[in-house]
Amino acid sequence: MIIDGKKIAQEILLYLKDEVQKLDTKPTIAVIIVGQNPSSKIYVNLKQKKAIELGMNSIVIEMQKDTTQKELEDKIDELNQNPEINAILVQLPLPKHLDTYKIIEKIDPIKDVDGFHPQNVGRLSIGLEPYSTSCTPKGVIRLLDAYNIDIESKNIVIIGRSNIVGKPLASMLLARNATVTVAHSKTLNIRAITQRADIVIAAVGSAHLIDSDWIKDKAVVIDVGISKSPEGKLLGDVDFESVKDKASYITPVPGGVGPMTIAMLLENTLHLYNLQKEQK
Amino acid sequence: MIIDGKKIAQEILLYLKDEVQKLDTKPTIAVIIVGQNPSSKIYVNLKQKKAIELGMNSIVIEMQKDTTQKELEDKIDELNQNPEINAILVQLPLPKHLDTYKIIEKIDPIKDVDGFHPQNVGRLSIGLEPYSTSCTPKGVIRLLDAYNIDIESKNIVIIGRSNIVGKPLASMLLARNATVTVAHSKTLNIRAITQRADIVIAAVGSAHLIDSDWIKDKAVVIDVGISKSPEGKLLGDVDFESVKDKASYITPVPGGVGPMTIAMLLENTLHLYNLQKEQK
Repeated sequence: MIIDGKKIAQEILLYLKDEVQKLDTKPTIAVIIVGQNPSSKIYVNLKQKKAIELGMNSIVIEMQKDTTQKELEDKIDELNQNPEINAILVQLPLPKHLDTYKIIEKIDPIKDVDGFHPQNVGRLSIGLEPYSTSCTPKGVIRLLDAYNIDIESKNIVIIGRSNIVGKPLASMLLARNATVTVAHSKTLNIRAITQRADIVIAAVGSAHLIDSDWIKDKAVVIDVGISKSPEGKLLGDVDFESVKDKASYITPVPGGVGPMTIAMLLENTLHLYNLQKEQK
Repeated sequence: MIIDGKKIAQEILLYLKDEVQKLDTKPTIAVIIVGQNPSSKIYVNLKQKKAIELGMNSIVIEMQKDTTQKELEDKIDELNQNPEINAILVQLPLPKHLDTYKIIEKIDPIKDVDGFHPQNVGRLSIGLEPYSTSCTPKGVIRLLDAYNIDIESKNIVIIGRSNIVGKPLASMLLARNATVTVAHSKTLNIRAITQRADIVIAAVGSAHLIDSDWIKDKAVVIDVGISKSPEGKLLGDVDFESVKDKASYITPVPGGVGPMTIAMLLENTLHLYNLQKEQK
């Protein structure tokens, strides 16, 4: 069965649009983009377009690629202090001369729409509700729930240990009582590990790494990876054609996890808006 | 081979004592204990005794068991602001009417000697150096290193997912390139999982849960669990007699991980002292 992320995301966006219409002011997300990375520009434009469709405000702040650490931190301070800004997103990757971690730590945790601030990551880990949680892992779990796929007591193998996907996803799944294994580039005999998993979640960014040999019969396969073929086609970590008949559920690329990420981003924006309102 | 935690801890304490003697002022740890839990009192006394042996200051603050949330938070604020206090430890468990998480979040992260503050937990997770890290997991890794037991690419199964041991240990081992599985009370067929592990780390608190059937030949077995027999004897999670001939390395209880925890606590105290000095 193919998991239709596009459809689930659409339902969430419609719900959010309704919720936003009930508000007396518009939730506002500020997106900072440094330099001219073409993929980043595409993502930022897409986020802005969707935010506006929902009736939110979206402000895009374009900064030169030679922006200094201090200039970027000052900009974040300014946004932190501006009560009209509810959510701050710094589009990654940043140019190499900038310290990404320090930038993220500069964002007020209550405006950290990506859930990357250590305060939010730490709260997620210890089971205290964070202001927001990382969008892609949150989207993965929402997909599993939408299709009533059990998480509790399942053996789940996450391939990839990034701060954006693998690690927060491990925290979230553990909190949902899964038995979680995190595998990665230094894992030996990785297939022997994924073959035992009830659910395999691939978040590596290596095109078509995973074929049907990697999974057991009826496994659930979630594909978070995105890479591009030389012809510019979007490719997942999973060889969909090879795996689709063996898996019980599988997400396609595109149209699987991708659309959920942006839906979760806008859900986080609304959530932060509400939290800030409560605090006033 | 039996891992001698007592000996390794002793070496660390001797090293710390030397380092403390070189300082012009004494690192100071403040330990707050609320109520009269007898085990807590024993632990607090032990920590104080060891700190003083190393030439540190140790202040124990005893508060009534009906202390309010506000009184405890105010006390922490006072310690946060006192420049003579380098490290703050709130002895757990707290009486039920107090919100442990909120108390921990109140501690200034640079004085959080247990590494429990979300900021420190989050930094550990994302690979940014925390001010301090949880003592027991740090002690476990130090033991593995002391015996030159490889961590990279090993399949490591942690049993138990507490905020104090299981979760931070998973972060640390993942950062050391292990393939990490976290199992717990909701894990099914747990023996099938531990039987495949190169290293099994038990942190459950269930006396002699693990016997030789749980582990593969030559596995490394680390026992973090502590419970008490009806006669008051300290028991680990591992049935030592059953496992010792099958394992390649094993920690005893007592004399394994326990002594390391307190050594790491005092190492953290010195580290926080040095960090605070640098910031002045």
